[in-house]
Parts: sequence; C-alpha cells; structure tokens
Amino acid sequence: MKSKLECVPCLLKQSLNATEVVTDDPVVQEKVLKSVMTVLQDMPLNKSPPAIAHAVYSIVHNITGCDDPYSALKAEYNTIAMEMYPCLKEIVDKSEDRLFTAIKLAIAGNIIDFGADIQFNIRTTIKDTLTREFAINNYPEFMESLEKAENILYLADNAGEVVFDRILIEELNDHANIIYAVKKSPIINDATTDDATFCGIDPLAEIVTTADTPGTLLERCDPEFVATYRSADMIISKGQGNYESLSEEDGNIFFMLLAKCPVIAADLGVKLRDAVLKHKSDTT
Amino acid sequence: MKSKLECVPCLLKQSLNATEVVTDDPVVQEKVLKSVMTVLQDMPLNKSPPAIAHAVYSIVHNITGCDDPYSALKAEYNTIAMEMYPCLKEIVDKSEDRLFTAIKLAIAGNIIDFGADIQFNIRTTIKDTLTREFAINNYPEFMESLEKAENILYLADNAGEVVFDRILIEELNDHANIIYAVKKSPIINDATTDDATFCGIDPLAEIVTTADTPGTLLERCDPEFVATYRSADMIISKGQGNYESLSEEDGNIFFMLLAKCPVIAADLGVKLRDAVLKHKSDTT
Repeated sequence: MKSKLECVPCLLKQSLNATEVVTDDPVVQEKVLKSVMTVLQDMPLNKSPPAIAHAVYSIVHNITGCDDPYSALKAEYNTIAMEMYPCLKEIVDKSEDRLFTAIKLAIAGNIIDFGADIQFNIRTTIKDTLTREFAINNYPEFMESLEKAENILYLADNAGEVVFDRILIEELNDHANIIYAVKKSPIINDATTDDATFCGIDPLAEIVTTADTPGTLLERCDPEFVATYRSADMIISKGQGNYESLSEEDGNIFFMLLAKCPVIAADLGVKLRDAVLKHKSDTT
Repeated sequence: MKSKLECVPCLLKQSLNATEVVTDDPVVQEKVLKSVMTVLQDMPLNKSPPAIAHAVYSIVHNITGCDDPYSALKAEYNTIAMEMYPCLKEIVDKSEDRLFTAIKLAIAGNIIDFGADIQFNIRTTIKDTLTREFAINNYPEFMESLEKAENILYLADNAGEVVFDRILIEELNDHANIIYAVKKSPIINDATTDDATFCGIDPLAEIVTTADTPGTLLERCDPEFVATYRSADMIISKGQGNYESLSEEDGNIFFMLLAKCPVIAADLGVKLRDAVLKHKSDTT
C-alpha cells in the first residue's frame, strides 16, 4: 500500500509524540519537527508508510540520541498483558469456538499501538471485539488454510499485543509449526525478541527477526527471513504496519488488525476501529 | 495564547483538509503540503495559532486560487441551523432558566467547526451540552456583568453557529445593546457578514467586522473595531480561535466554547469536548 498525503501530517505528529516521550526540551522537540519536515519535503510519497516512518523515526533517534523512545511503555504493556493472560485464557476455555475466540482476542490486542493517533482502552476493546461482527471476516478461508498448513509464519506487531498472539498460537500449535517474526531492532512500540521472550512465546514458536522498520518490508529483511516468508504455507499478518507493507506482496496471507487510521480503513473499505480478518492469496 | 509544537502537524493537516475540499488533484494537494511545511519551518512559534493559521490558509488560497474553500459547507450549515431554529427556540421557551439555556445552546453550536480535527454531530452535542455540567461555569459572574452592561460586543465564530448565537442574543437584547462581530473576509468556516445576515442577526444587533484571520487578532483589526472592543462593557467571545487570540488581552471577556483541541483543553485545564463558560476580567 502506498502512502497518502494524509500520512504526512500524521507522521509529523508521530515524530513529535515519540520525542515528547524522550525529552521535555522544546528546543529538541522543535528541531525534530523541523528536521522531519525537511525530510518529508524531499521524500517521494509512492513509498509505503512503514518506509517513510523508518526515515522519520531515524530522525527522532539521531536528534534525541534515544533509539527506543517507547521502551518503558513497551515494558509496561507487556506486564499489563501478562497479568491479563489467565483471564484471556479463561475466555477461550469457556468459548464455543476456541480458535475463533482466540483470533478475536489476537485482533483486540492490536489496539496497543503508540504509532496510531488514538487513545485506547484494552478492556473495552476486548469486550467490543468479542461481541461485534468483524467488518471483513474470512474465518472460513482461515480454517481451510489451517487444515492444509504445515508451517505458519506469524508476523507480530506490538509489545503487549504479543500476549494476545500467544493465546492464538496456543490454539494453532496442534495444527502446524509456528514461526513468530518480530523486529530486529526497536521501532515505535513494535515487538522485538525480548518482548516475545518476556511474553512467553519462546516454548511455543521459533522466534525470528524481520528488519528495523515498522511492518515487514521484504527488501529490508535478511535473505533467510525472505526464504522463510516465501516457504510459509500460511502467513498471519498482525496490525496496520504489516498490512501497509504486504498488501501488494505475494503470499497466502491472513491480515488481522483493528483499523486505527483513516487511510488504512479506506484502503480496506471499513470504518475506523473495525476489526478485520482478511485473506489475500496469490491469486487475489 | 501561544502556539504549541502540537499545532504544527495540526495546521499542516488543516491545510490538506481545506485543499481536498477544493480539488481532487494530488499534485496541487502535495504542492500545498510542501509549501506549508516550508513556511512552518521558518515561522517563529511564539505567535498565536490564528496568526499561523492565517499564513497557512493563505498558501491554500494562493495555490488553489480559491479564497473560500468551505463556502458550500458554510451555506449548508447555515441552512441546517436555520431549520433547527424553531426547535432551539422551543427548548429555551420550555426551560426554567431561559438565559442559561440559551448560553448552553450557543456553546453547543460551537461544535460546527471545520478547522478542528473532529467529527461532529450537532443534535448529539446539543443534548450533551444541555445535560452535562460545564467544565468551567462562570454563569454567576456572567449574570453580574450583564446586570451592569449597557453594550456587549459578541465575537462570532463559525457559520451555522450564528443561529445558536442568535438564540442567545434574543435573550440578551432586553438587557443591553449588542454588537455582533464577524470576519472581514472568509477564513476556514468562520462567519462573515453574509452568514450573519442569512441567519437573522441583522435586526437584533449591529454587525461589524474584525479581520481576515481566525479568532480576533486586535493588531490586524481596523482602529474602529479596536475602539469598539475597548469600549465594550462586556465581551462574549465564541470558540477556540477567539480564545487563542484574546486569552492574554485585556477586557471583561466571557469565553464560551467547546474544547475541541488538546492544546486548548490543556490551556484551560479541561478535557476534550468539555463545555466552557470562562470569565476573564482585566484583573484575572
């Protein structure tokens, strides 16, 4: 998916949000804002939003000297989500359709996002996602693919959300071998290997890394990862960044996300805050 | 009130919103965005938001050739509000405190704002404003000032909202002489003389004009208007733009607004969407 002009003010705001987490110094904050505007003025906007976001967050890193502005918030949300784990597990245990309930929870966990321009409440989102119809629901295709899949590549999105992914992976583990892909280095509040380990993914799935950008820009990933991607029978792609970077790539992909930005909602033909389980095969 | 760094991405987004109303051409839209970023990079941010907004909307005007992007929407909301007039009047007629109810409605009308980054529903806002407590409520001071006032300067905000102002002016007319101030030329969806006339202010109050910026920047107004401002016994200031430009000026001012932006909400110490009736005298 290509960027839209609406992404420009949004990314500018994101750069300020990330800087404000690191420093109260208005001189540094203004320097970041103006540097980001300089870069955005010269940048071709036919790139995907994660590619531009990488450039924008690199400026925050270079000017503030901090390469992980959201580290404390990531740790906080990992802990909050881990404390919710028994309750989430009970919701699955008591449900009529364990797999679909686990998918709903994995999508609900996608609300934990410091890149999106939203305020969020995890418990309200869980309740809402469990009870509302998905705006796009390709669950039948998901079950059909799962029946045949021997290996599944699961592309993580954010810290904290990993616990919600774990709930789903625990349901998938009987069906196929799972590889869980996180970011190679910190970017926004995206999950890295440390987050996956903290949230208990380790015994359930092999953990691999993608790249240093939001989403999964294959051209920035190691050849080993690209090979894993190409050989996966089924790909579960969590969140907006992965959708933005993979919506035009080949693969038997199931996008699971909450639409938190108007540009992505419009691209998917859904409304803001809608839940989406969308299948994209090589032929669609 | 001085601008905050948060105003920069917001004003950039506003410039895109206004351009998108005028043209679908992405080349023009991108040109506006990049030109606005050039201006914002060089602009001192110790100006008030209306001063920066004026520069930003001038770029939209210069590049698109359109000096009134919201003219159709302004006409639409004038008509919608005029159709609501009998219903609004009935709410006042049936109320226990006509004046306070009219103030509530005047504040509710402030939701009609195409500069603020919000989606709005007029009927829901009316219901909400009639039933919820104001976050700041200086109604006792308002009544006390009104008792003594012989002339009131009423600073308008937006088209459509004018009908809600009319409801309040009809209650004030028995107490004092009212002067109703609108913008000299179109800016965002701010009310001009045409809007005031269309909405029936003409027989109720003398209509005067301020300047070509959002809010009321006294340094950009004619000396005649500044004299009117200085000699007013009481000033009713509607909306965010007037608060931004007058919060540090002298005058016996009553700010009436809905907080629709986080920067203004923080400045006032209220929450987003809170209703405010705030008194600022020369000594506070």
